[in-house]
Amino acid sequence: MDLVEVGTRLELHDLYTAYAACLDTDALEDWPDFFTEDCRYRITSAENYEAGMPIGLIYATSKNMLRDRVTALRQANIYEPQRYRHLVSGVAIAGRGDESGLDVTASFMVVRTMQDGAMTVFAVGRYIDRVVRGPSRWLFARKEVVLDSRRIDTLLAIPL
Amino acid sequence: MDLVEVGTRLELHDLYTAYAACLDTDALEDWPDFFTEDCRYRITSAENYEAGMPIGLIYATSKNMLRDRVTALRQANIYEPQRYRHLVSGVAIAGRGDESGLDVTASFMVVRTMQDGAMTVFAVGRYIDRVVRGPSRWLFARKEVVLDSRRIDTLLAIPL
Amino acid sequence: MDLVEVGTRLELHDLYTAYAACLDTDALEDWPDFFTEDCRYRITSAENYEAGMPIGLIYATSKNMLRDRVTALRQANIYEPQRYRHLVSGVAIAGRGDESGLDVTASFMVVRTMQDGAMTVFAVGRYIDRVVRGPSRWLFARKEVVLDSRRIDTLLAIPL
Repeated sequence: MDLVEVGTRLELHDLYTAYAACLDTDALEDWPDFFTEDCRYRITSAENYEAGMPIGLIYATSKNMLRDRVTALRQANIYEPQRYRHLVSGVAIAGRGDESGLDVTASFMVVRTMQDGAMTVFAVGRYIDRVVRGPSRWLFARKEVVLDSRRIDTLLAIPL
Repeated sequence: MDLVEVGTRLELHDLYTAYAACLDTDALEDWPDFFTEDCRYRITSAENYEAGMPIGLIYATSKNMLRDRVTALRQANIYEPQRYRHLVSGVAIAGRGDESGLDVTASFMVVRTMQDGAMTVFAVGRYIDRVVRGPSRWLFARKEVVLDSRRIDTLLAIPL
Repeated sequence: MDLVEVGTRLELHDLYTAYAACLDTDALEDWPDFFTEDCRYRITSAENYEAGMPIGLIYATSKNMLRDRVTALRQANIYEPQRYRHLVSGVAIAGRGDESGLDVTASFMVVRTMQDGAMTVFAVGRYIDRVVRGPSRWLFARKEVVLDSRRIDTLLAIPL
């Protein structure tokens, strides 16, 4: 493994770490900046993903749609305060289809902590992503958040 | 740290990532290929491990036994569909006893998602492994799956 | 990324892995050795941390105080045996304020396994640390364990 490859690996690790930290610190306004302008972002269930169903709980086809989503979340957020904690494991380069980017997968778990202190496993699943080099860091050109569970109604509120 | 050492570290990271992905995608037929022909594989409890008890919930002393196990699992699997998600953390080289391999440890957690969407922490524990270089990648010559919990009856179904 | 930077990254990964393994194997007597003599160690809630409250559930201002804590724990530990499993994710260098050390953050989850085998998410949160180079490895000059939950009464027993 040469130093360029090593550097790429560690940069991808940084990308997923920064992404998780952005969500966990509720810095939602910074979240769209992890994506390209014409990105595709989707949250779906493993069941739907494997069946090739194009639907998703959240489906966006541009960075602007992600910005709109954040605005809507900030306006709609009338619920009690909650905290989310992402743990990401197994970041791997799954493919290098062409020169323009890398296919990257990772496993994640999110633990939600309610105002009263109760902690629950909120979501587990896989990221199935395509990343491209941006001016200063890697960006998501496509991000599929594939949840192991199909019971996803309570997920409406937040990005993953 | 020189580049060879760095490369080894990242290759081990890849090994555990690929191993987890194999199990989480239910690609059980590929699972034995992570092991050497004369491998030893065991699932046991921390209690039994620390007491030096050689018993295990699953105990195999060859790759062929692992293949048999997969066949049995496929025939016996009459349960409702479940999904498993491994999160692996803290992969570390614990020793380099001789030229033939490396002692590697890691922590893991497995979350199980049932058909109805319920998620539970299914298993946590340590991998205490010995890996050797195979023709194309690192292989497990020995893998001990040491569970923190001794309540392991429900684990009978799947490898970890 | 040059090889020195890569080496530092992997050394920090090793530090957090060894720290977690120390706690998970109940090697508490070794725990103070992860710190500098004049370290600061605190366990607090995110709520208190964000409010700038200097209080903490555990607050120590020297390695000797950590040693005392271990002694007290060993004497007081009349509870049933429990096991803890740390999963650490997202170790990142957050800053390099001066030559003397690095600011490092990471996310963690701890699963507790009771004597009867029951597993629960015991704690999730962030490490907000400052590390310095010691004679043989990196040491914590400051470690803030910031818990997502404020329900922390049961945490009194153990370091995190």
